[in-house]
Amino acid sequence: MAELGPFCSELVRQVRAQDTYGLWDGKLDVELLGPFLIDKAKAREIPVIGDPDPAVLARLTLFYAAVALAIEKRSGIMASPLMSITGEGFGRVVLTCGRLVAVSKTLRDVHRFGFPSLEKLEATGAALVEDALTWIEKFNDAATAD
Amino acid sequence: MAELGPFCSELVRQVRAQDTYGLWDGKLDVELLGPFLIDKAKAREIPVIGDPDPAVLARLTLFYAAVALAIEKRSGIMASPLMSITGEGFGRVVLTCGRLVAVSKTLRDVHRFGFPSLEKLEATGAALVEDALTWIEKFNDAATAD
Repeated sequence: MAELGPFCSELVRQVRAQDTYGLWDGKLDVELLGPFLIDKAKAREIPVIGDPDPAVLARLTLFYAAVALAIEKRSGIMASPLMSITGEGFGRVVLTCGRLVAVSKTLRDVHRFGFPSLEKLEATGAALVEDALTWIEKFNDAATAD
Repeated sequence: MAELGPFCSELVRQVRAQDTYGLWDGKLDVELLGPFLIDKAKAREIPVIGDPDPAVLARLTLFYAAVALAIEKRSGIMASPLMSITGEGFGRVVLTCGRLVAVSKTLRDVHRFGFPSLEKLEATGAALVEDALTWIEKFNDAATAD
């Protein structure tokens, strides 16, 4: 089995940090990432009516927490996530570093949050981290302000 | 009666914009701001247990929408509010201009959101706007990025 990429490893750490009672100690890392994987056909079956499932919101929070932690490890600057989701599964998430908006994403179809493969999960998380690091480099004064 | 300050006037415009059916056309501006005024003794009587009242959340949203609009009018740069409140009445609100965090506030005791007087409401809103304009001036490149 291929080793997990650095972003997926960070996400696994975030997931395991939720496991206060050690119930998942015997689980493999890839098992813990299983709920983040939804293939396109399965995603289409999820209705986007009503409030998103609390479990999907928890996964979304963990995903951006992993992005924030990865940014902090790479830049040394703390990133704070702030997420706002409407009942219809739309919303916005920002990660702020000092006075800088390091990440800003519009969310839609939150009900269907997931990735078709581990590779895609790794690539999406890593791209958000890289993009944030570019902004931090560009506006370092703002990122270190306050 | 003294004229309303510029921030309170902006807030009144925000409140009137909610009034789709013109039910408040006959109301004075100060009447519309009445629900934003809570004296300290009355505030202490409001329990901070459970979810904040939806009406108080609506007022909080209008208050920061007025701050955002005032920033935009003064700087020409659009400010987007993003608010996240936990059930316990804690939370955080940011107003972003481009890549800049123009306003960042930790919220507590949201249940009791209100001001002891119109003067205090005006001063609090105006101070948030002035502070944001200082950041926009300082980090203009970030504020106009993206």
